[in-house]
Amino acid sequence: MSFVNVAPDSDFPIQNLPYGVFSTPDNPRPRIGVAIGDFILDLTQVKQLFDGPVLRDIQDVFDQPTLNAFMGLGKPAWTEARSTLQQILSDSEPVLRDNAELRARALVPQSQATMLLPARIGDYTDFYSSKNHAFNVGCMFRDPANALNPNWTYLPVGYHGRASSVVVSGTPIRRPTGQTRPDDNKPPVFGPCRLLDFELEMAFFTGPATRLGEPVSMDKAEDHIFGMVLMNDWSARDIQKWEYVPLGPFLAKNFGTTVSPWVVTMDALKPFIVTNLLQDPAPLPYLQQEDNYNFDIKLDVSIMADGLAKPAVISRSNFKNMYWTMKQQLVHHTVTGCNINPGDLMGSGTISGESQDSLGSLLELCWKGTRTVDLGNGVTRKFLQDGDEVIFSGYCEGNGYRVGFGTCAGKILPAHAALVG
Amino acid sequence: MSFVNVAPDSDFPIQNLPYGVFSTPDNPRPRIGVAIGDFILDLTQVKQLFDGPVLRDIQDVFDQPTLNAFMGLGKPAWTEARSTLQQILSDSEPVLRDNAELRARALVPQSQATMLLPARIGDYTDFYSSKNHAFNVGCMFRDPANALNPNWTYLPVGYHGRASSVVVSGTPIRRPTGQTRPDDNKPPVFGPCRLLDFELEMAFFTGPATRLGEPVSMDKAEDHIFGMVLMNDWSARDIQKWEYVPLGPFLAKNFGTTVSPWVVTMDALKPFIVTNLLQDPAPLPYLQQEDNYNFDIKLDVSIMADGLAKPAVISRSNFKNMYWTMKQQLVHHTVTGCNINPGDLMGSGTISGESQDSLGSLLELCWKGTRTVDLGNGVTRKFLQDGDEVIFSGYCEGNGYRVGFGTCAGKILPAHAALVG
Repeated sequence: MSFVNVAPDSDFPIQNLPYGVFSTPDNPRPRIGVAIGDFILDLTQVKQLFDGPVLRDIQDVFDQPTLNAFMGLGKPAWTEARSTLQQILSDSEPVLRDNAELRARALVPQSQATMLLPARIGDYTDFYSSKNHAFNVGCMFRDPANALNPNWTYLPVGYHGRASSVVVSGTPIRRPTGQTRPDDNKPPVFGPCRLLDFELEMAFFTGPATRLGEPVSMDKAEDHIFGMVLMNDWSARDIQKWEYVPLGPFLAKNFGTTVSPWVVTMDALKPFIVTNLLQDPAPLPYLQQEDNYNFDIKLDVSIMADGLAKPAVISRSNFKNMYWTMKQQLVHHTVTGCNINPGDLMGSGTISGESQDSLGSLLELCWKGTRTVDLGNGVTRKFLQDGDEVIFSGYCEGNGYRVGFGTCAGKILPAHAALVG
Repeated sequence: MSFVNVAPDSDFPIQNLPYGVFSTPDNPRPRIGVAIGDFILDLTQVKQLFDGPVLRDIQDVFDQPTLNAFMGLGKPAWTEARSTLQQILSDSEPVLRDNAELRARALVPQSQATMLLPARIGDYTDFYSSKNHAFNVGCMFRDPANALNPNWTYLPVGYHGRASSVVVSGTPIRRPTGQTRPDDNKPPVFGPCRLLDFELEMAFFTGPATRLGEPVSMDKAEDHIFGMVLMNDWSARDIQKWEYVPLGPFLAKNFGTTVSPWVVTMDALKPFIVTNLLQDPAPLPYLQQEDNYNFDIKLDVSIMADGLAKPAVISRSNFKNMYWTMKQQLVHHTVTGCNINPGDLMGSGTISGESQDSLGSLLELCWKGTRTVDLGNGVTRKFLQDGDEVIFSGYCEGNGYRVGFGTCAGKILPAHAALVG
């Protein structure tokens, strides 16, 4: 238990302790904090308390505008930091509990803080690792008999995304403009995206850098996975359909990708490991994994729209629907010798469950626009409209506590006036 | 003319003045320099001479380990810096010419320097804008009647690449390992890439940052294009063939991308502008361009291999083969509102001419392995072998001078021993 009051349904009890970057009106400097209940522990104010053998000589790693340096230190530092945090926030430890002056400086109400991107993202990769999602998309655009491409069950299909346009939850997303070809017998047209969608994803941030030419083997993969966030891979379905052959999604994805601000560490998620999905055919040896590294993380998607009194939940999914694990993704990504850096972001791909109410995109929920999602109050959607806010939340259910991710939200702005014409 | 001696066939006369980042054995700090003849002008030593109205209060922009900050300043700063450099290097200007002590500090022989990446590359994008190349690949993997996909003539097809593995010329490239499926009736196999190739490309570095949601219009595009380099987009053809449907090239490209160290500015390249290629059908209005922005840059590809006394030239191409201009690429890239940052890298795609001896990849030169390239001395190639060094060079031919790019070279190391088995 912590001396900081934490509500039973809080995402941020002492079992969680996620890292984020924030600023406040009276101190606009971006700095690292840890969420505890409704507060943020400002690590710049308590960095001197990290006096374990790994961190005591490098306490300035907590006095940075991003988490990259800390992510780059690796597991011994992550574990020691967590242990120190659990100690200094514990109700049996006086160092912070009984120091009113330090407490006042170090504990910032979350309501007063602006959350920022947790890391400078060097590279962003997006995988496509939920079998239900890949199957659904394959059914819609090909046919059920050939829904999964032949490579899908042999390797975690992925692609490189745009790092510059990854933004933190709360950042508005402007409806993109671009080329589409609504009629295959006519030339393409230019205008605002008409089929704007979300994709329910999670993503992990990477840890220590590797050298170019040096793959990460399965037994080392965990050392390079720092923690996880919720992610919305906003997608312009009509732009994608026209542009993506043969080199993959480009403009259909690069106008914005939203992540939740709190990075939940793998140490905090470990109690929620569940059995990996059965992989058939068996992966090639370099992708084989002995241990379980799948996670029971409940996810839900809400939309707030004009005409609604409160956000409507439109889908409930779970991260455990992932076919390929994060370790397999990382091992595959680096098997060519591709190097990673601290703070790279690797997305799961859209996480869809099996049932109709657990799908991770409007494309699937509305099955390519052939049905609607009911938001209540007579409001329905096939794709996103201007002013809609999409809100993801996610948490693991512990015994009397939650390890949660907070929310990942973004509101759609109208297309750029100069380009609407 | 410069007081620094410049050979007539040098890539780096006073008309060029490309920027790079270098270090020396006696001063390992990465710093910005400008190539002049066989020397580098160390800008940290002469930054005080940039006393024009734009730069005089921000001279520290030249005292940085990368060019990002300078790239971010935009055209007025770039033009003023060029003018100052041309003045202080001129044979009629005494400030450097007659100051032996400053000259000794500021002019570093290129032979003593190690060149580094010119910028911290936030995002790397690769286009596919040579019609000959796209047509050739389409012929090989589809058929001549449908060689170009329907979208190709309407938009500059591109994809996001991996920024972390962009390296400077001279960095060895390890042969990647990965999954391939040589026999469509059998499962995929794991091992070293067997069809390793180069791709002859050029790339531009971007200038001032844009904000997310704010497209760059055609009349502003030039303000965001800083300068160009040679680029080798190393490609694992067998890995690509198996992995790339439906999300595009991933591991087949992420094991390394080599760029030349000297960034030749658009001001230096302006005298070599030639007519744009005819675009039929006419592009949609947002991609229409009144002015010419195509460049006559002669390019050649050599391979140095065991058994050869010197590198063998295997192809001579020209950047003017580009169908889509760099302005069109940039405008298209940002039309969704995708933001760019100083130092982003945007590749042209493989630049192939029309004739058999002007193709930009072994895939095309050897037409999918159905013929060989003769390197002389009985040495032939269909794809790259371990120990092969691929060397690109490029220059514009002026009246009695060259504006050149130096070389972009990389040597193939054997696959990682632990993964060869």
